[in-house]
Amino acid sequence: MKLLLINGNRTQSVTDTVLAEARLAAAPDTMLTAVTATFGADIVFSHAGHAIAAHAVLDSLARHHAGFDAAILAISFDSGLAAARELLPIPVLGITESSLRAACATGRRIGIVTFGAASQPLYRDVFALSGMQTHIAGTRTIDIASSSQYLAPAQLDASVVAAANALADEDGAEAVVICGAAVAGIARRLGGAVRVPLFDGVASAVREAESLVRAGYRKPARVPGPVSRVTGVAPELAALFAAAAPAATAAQVTE
Amino acid sequence: MKLLLINGNRTQSVTDTVLAEARLAAAPDTMLTAVTATFGADIVFSHAGHAIAAHAVLDSLARHHAGFDAAILAISFDSGLAAARELLPIPVLGITESSLRAACATGRRIGIVTFGAASQPLYRDVFALSGMQTHIAGTRTIDIASSSQYLAPAQLDASVVAAANALADEDGAEAVVICGAAVAGIARRLGGAVRVPLFDGVASAVREAESLVRAGYRKPARVPGPVSRVTGVAPELAALFAAAAPAATAAQVTE
Amino acid sequence: MKLLLINGNRTQSVTDTVLAEARLAAAPDTMLTAVTATFGADIVFSHAGHAIAAHAVLDSLARHHAGFDAAILAISFDSGLAAARELLPIPVLGITESSLRAACATGRRIGIVTFGAASQPLYRDVFALSGMQTHIAGTRTIDIASSSQYLAPAQLDASVVAAANALADEDGAEAVVICGAAVAGIARRLGGAVRVPLFDGVASAVREAESLVRAGYRKPARVPGPVSRVTGVAPELAALFAAAAPAATAAQVTE
Amino acid sequence: MKLLLINGNRTQSVTDTVLAEARLAAAPDTMLTAVTATFGADIVFSHAGHAIAAHAVLDSLARHHAGFDAAILAISFDSGLAAARELLPIPVLGITESSLRAACATGRRIGIVTFGAASQPLYRDVFALSGMQTHIAGTRTIDIASSSQYLAPAQLDASVVAAANALADEDGAEAVVICGAAVAGIARRLGGAVRVPLFDGVASAVREAESLVRAGYRKPARVPGPVSRVTGVAPELAALFAAAAPAATAAQVTE
Amino acid sequence: MKLLLINGNRTQSVTDTVLAEARLAAAPDTMLTAVTATFGADIVFSHAGHAIAAHAVLDSLARHHAGFDAAILAISFDSGLAAARELLPIPVLGITESSLRAACATGRRIGIVTFGAASQPLYRDVFALSGMQTHIAGTRTIDIASSSQYLAPAQLDASVVAAANALADEDGAEAVVICGAAVAGIARRLGGAVRVPLFDGVASAVREAESLVRAGYRKPARVPGPVSRVTGVAPELAALFAAAAPAATAAQVTE
Amino acid sequence: MKLLLINGNRTQSVTDTVLAEARLAAAPDTMLTAVTATFGADIVFSHAGHAIAAHAVLDSLARHHAGFDAAILAISFDSGLAAARELLPIPVLGITESSLRAACATGRRIGIVTFGAASQPLYRDVFALSGMQTHIAGTRTIDIASSSQYLAPAQLDASVVAAANALADEDGAEAVVICGAAVAGIARRLGGAVRVPLFDGVASAVREAESLVRAGYRKPARVPGPVSRVTGVAPELAALFAAAAPAATAAQVTE
Repeated sequence: MKLLLINGNRTQSVTDTVLAEARLAAAPDTMLTAVTATFGADIVFSHAGHAIAAHAVLDSLARHHAGFDAAILAISFDSGLAAARELLPIPVLGITESSLRAACATGRRIGIVTFGAASQPLYRDVFALSGMQTHIAGTRTIDIASSSQYLAPAQLDASVVAAANALADEDGAEAVVICGAAVAGIARRLGGAVRVPLFDGVASAVREAESLVRAGYRKPARVPGPVSRVTGVAPELAALFAAAAPAATAAQVTE
Repeated sequence: MKLLLINGNRTQSVTDTVLAEARLAAAPDTMLTAVTATFGADIVFSHAGHAIAAHAVLDSLARHHAGFDAAILAISFDSGLAAARELLPIPVLGITESSLRAACATGRRIGIVTFGAASQPLYRDVFALSGMQTHIAGTRTIDIASSSQYLAPAQLDASVVAAANALADEDGAEAVVICGAAVAGIARRLGGAVRVPLFDGVASAVREAESLVRAGYRKPARVPGPVSRVTGVAPELAALFAAAAPAATAAQVTE
Repeated sequence: MKLLLINGNRTQSVTDTVLAEARLAAAPDTMLTAVTATFGADIVFSHAGHAIAAHAVLDSLARHHAGFDAAILAISFDSGLAAARELLPIPVLGITESSLRAACATGRRIGIVTFGAASQPLYRDVFALSGMQTHIAGTRTIDIASSSQYLAPAQLDASVVAAANALADEDGAEAVVICGAAVAGIARRLGGAVRVPLFDGVASAVREAESLVRAGYRKPARVPGPVSRVTGVAPELAALFAAAAPAATAAQVTE
Repeated sequence: MKLLLINGNRTQSVTDTVLAEARLAAAPDTMLTAVTATFGADIVFSHAGHAIAAHAVLDSLARHHAGFDAAILAISFDSGLAAARELLPIPVLGITESSLRAACATGRRIGIVTFGAASQPLYRDVFALSGMQTHIAGTRTIDIASSSQYLAPAQLDASVVAAANALADEDGAEAVVICGAAVAGIARRLGGAVRVPLFDGVASAVREAESLVRAGYRKPARVPGPVSRVTGVAPELAALFAAAAPAATAAQVTE
Repeated sequence: MKLLLINGNRTQSVTDTVLAEARLAAAPDTMLTAVTATFGADIVFSHAGHAIAAHAVLDSLARHHAGFDAAILAISFDSGLAAARELLPIPVLGITESSLRAACATGRRIGIVTFGAASQPLYRDVFALSGMQTHIAGTRTIDIASSSQYLAPAQLDASVVAAANALADEDGAEAVVICGAAVAGIARRLGGAVRVPLFDGVASAVREAESLVRAGYRKPARVPGPVSRVTGVAPELAALFAAAAPAATAAQVTE
Repeated sequence: MKLLLINGNRTQSVTDTVLAEARLAAAPDTMLTAVTATFGADIVFSHAGHAIAAHAVLDSLARHHAGFDAAILAISFDSGLAAARELLPIPVLGITESSLRAACATGRRIGIVTFGAASQPLYRDVFALSGMQTHIAGTRTIDIASSSQYLAPAQLDASVVAAANALADEDGAEAVVICGAAVAGIARRLGGAVRVPLFDGVASAVREAESLVRAGYRKPARVPGPVSRVTGVAPELAALFAAAAPAATAAQVTE
């Protein structure tokens, strides 16, 4: 099985971390490739960075998806997920959604740890659109003074452990998700120090992708709606749109 | 007062329609400019087209916003709205959100008319994120067999009138919003044939922008979060990010 | 354009404040008239006062609306708004709803400042019925020891600024609404001291009324339901009911 | 025990029906008095009629409550309920809320039958504010061509039975509530023809009032907030406000 | 009238307390019988204990219900309520649901006091399924170090009074419910020390049962669905299933 | 890896079907054992059957779980899931929850197909408590005249295919879940005839269990709350309670 990981942030060290963690989580015969976005923010923390990352993710998927069995969006806010599912002929998973589902397999009330107060509005949207909001027992946000602090999260370990245990003790969380692509592996590293199971996104998404592919799940690419030309973007991306466009069909008045 | 309209679709005739309707709605001393996205879908009907349009809207805003008092996103799904509000130093309005607020000023239960069943999932997201969902009494979707049908909506007038009256009679709508950039002016044209007030997006957004500017409302541009470089995009857009980045500040653990 | 402001509280100084602030917000050619309720509470803080104010507002509207283009209910809880919209042949706006919409034009998460803990249940109802509840990021209530403190709110300015900044910093509010008819003008006065835009009701409602009227929005008066005599009230109000009653029409079983 | 029933509609025959049904439901030693509103609509079907009825109900309660153990608002929309609970030193119940609670004692999903499509928006508000909305499995509205048809509902029996059985069969209702003061007794009359238990408001409220009084439940009258004079209303009502006003107390900033 | 109380906990002293309190609340001519579960946890605090108690409650009902007019489940989590309503030919009430309805008859916002943080997830489910969640102004949980502390709650009185007053003062509760079978009578004992009305479950359920029976409410036993044999349980319980099974009927495709 | 499947229905042919399908879904080195409940309903369709099945599931788990790495509840309503998670020292999954999560990995809006209108209230509770309710685009229920029809579902294939395609076409479902233990394998069998991916419970739960076990997820058994004896049940179950009881610990007042 071949899995493609797309880092929607432009930081190569995040791609390296993501790939290393994916390797630890994957089955021995799973082949993994990770690519970094070619435009956008070094690290996405804002709606503005997220909007550009969604395009960048589609661009990278268009260039690299051929021959892969599934793709994983390794960016905290699952940027571009709904769009990629329309365009791609293979399953596409987002790391934050996958980690929430993995946690829900062990309990109903999930605690969330995020990094940087600035991203809370974006996470709120991700949770609202993913429909997982009713599972969230509480959220704790770890202070970060700069991107570099988020990229070397070991120094934040004590804060993360304290936040996760507080979610279990004060908010009744039965499992805790640590959000963020750059912190891939943190759940594995800190699991022993927290009273409830910890999950993070990359390992969760790799396991979910393997299950979906093994299940033989096949999906068509299908961009809904009347045919519309897409221009001014990478030729691979325009081609992907053209391939996924349905034949024009008469619609009906729907209530 | 100077207002900038950005058409996130790549179809010039939509830009022309939008500008003509904006002119009818605006005060005599309001100056209007409309620009068309330079990349993306001719007409956006899908999540995939919407994701690229969000980037294209930011790109156009970055190139053209200087000297304007407010900007209006003339695209059905308000693509890029949250991102543009972070980046721009002027107010930014989306036509669909504006039309919902205008309708709510006349009654509590709002009916929605949209074009093309394919776009329903996208509209669902717009309404969910805009927080206006609780106002929606019902939705009617008008069949369109092709983009060209949507671009020359006069032939759909009878269907729209029937749908709007059904929303009033069957769903208790006190006002009806006709969604879509390409149909700008339809509420003005058909208002006399419907039992409750009709609104569409462009006129609503122009009036709301004029009110905000007259109110002297001033906003800073501010991309939240730790500083992060943005590269590989238009230089004007990269510069906008840099200008809107806050000085790095120590955050706090937030619950 | 002629706008009628109805103060549902029986305090003339509130009417004077409201009219002065409306004058500052209105276009130069807008003519404004403000009247005070002729029965009810000096200042409404309770469900009981609110119930009587709704009748008093209808009574005042019945006596004075002739010749006006729109009416504004200048009372904190928009008392009588749904009823007035049925009875009147002109648009009717409530100051609290209008200020929430104005704030939503600048951001999705709105903070609320109110005066006096006693009114919280009433505000909860207003927000629940207005459908704007999902926008509310948080609420701060300013202590008032007596009506007179609320009527001379300048001494509360420091508390209001602190509350508004706390809503921005702690609750992520992107804009803040200061509720209350008696504090009309407070957003204009304190806007410079708060990190996010401030709105209050009277100016917001005046601008929204002007937009509606300029849009040429026309509404019929229409009290729904089978014809029912209204007696024992002011003759002008009884006449308004009679004028707004529809011809009896056969209804249908509706699901 | 003495119970006071206030008919918020100005139609004496409704008061007579309500009192007769209350007599059938009450314990032998319960004494019942019913009074009719002295101003307002003959029958309330609209927000406008409801607003005036709320004042009329307070006016009647103020004049007549002395010596009673509890009061029942015999009007479809529980007009004035929250206000009356503040002002009165005895328990106050609304017939629609009481019937919903009675039905919920027998099952979780409740069907609703109402009369006249015009009143649906009002009922929506009653259910939203009562917090019982999540219990409602479905609603059926019986057509009425005129007030007189609603006042002699026996001719509507077949429609009501059909609607109630449809709620059970199609919407999974485990019990059905027939709303409206004028139809008091309809649940008793038609219960045998419907597959699930039927409830209506007057009998439900009488039984709930008897339970509350027997439980020895004592409540203080208390209009919250800073003291505010109430003038221009019936002297008995002004006196009730004065009696229920709390001594001015220093409040606190509440989040 | 004869009422059957089933204590789903295996502690006889709880049954004794429940019966004594029911006696105080019941009408003089109401005959009361209380039985204790024959298997399960001494006191239920967990999902695991709750699951077994539901079976034990059905088992006890099957053995003892003959000749009774209504049954009351005297266990904090209303364990087995939906199931018992299917199986029994008499009304069945749960003490926690009944106390919430009783409280709602006096005000819209209800405070909740529970014992032992461990039970919060279970209460959350009870409130979610009962549909009363929207009424809950806040919850306070009283610490208990052992079952014996919960069984002799007088020593917890000061904590309960403090919690109830905090719910009124800080959360705006208009009435407070004290949850738990073992604390039956606590609302009566402490009512004088709390600013808002207090309710507990046993007295509330007894009064509600009396009202339902007096109303002549009749219900059939009916286990929905295709006929299915029940084996391996007490013969009385198997017989109850058989008696309540409907004749096999052809169903329809339901949306 | 060793997985234990518990059929909470007393029908051996369902256990056989479940085991055969689990075998097809499992990895080659996964060892599977399936056991049938020893008391309760042949097939659970009702709240009453569900309540007994929860106990029966715990009973079977207590007798058989030793040596297994994870357990799967192979019963349509995940009966006993929350309780089993407290008691067992290994992960426990319910087939309906697992199939919903599997479907959500491929799209946001999920259609649901169930068998027998009688079970709809039970499914409503499962979805409400699982927190997945917001994902559900629509539900279609297949008519069954008897248990035997549900046990030989091949004759229902045409109805299931029609229902699944209707969910995709009319309700916008992006994936469809076929609920029920007895129909295990139906998604695999009919997948080719439906336009969107199909999922059923047993295969989904097997794959999710394998992922969890491979992830090295370890959980303690822990029945929350003060220690409470459990008696009158199978000795293995009583022992499981005793083993899972925490040492008594002092709790705190929690808000």
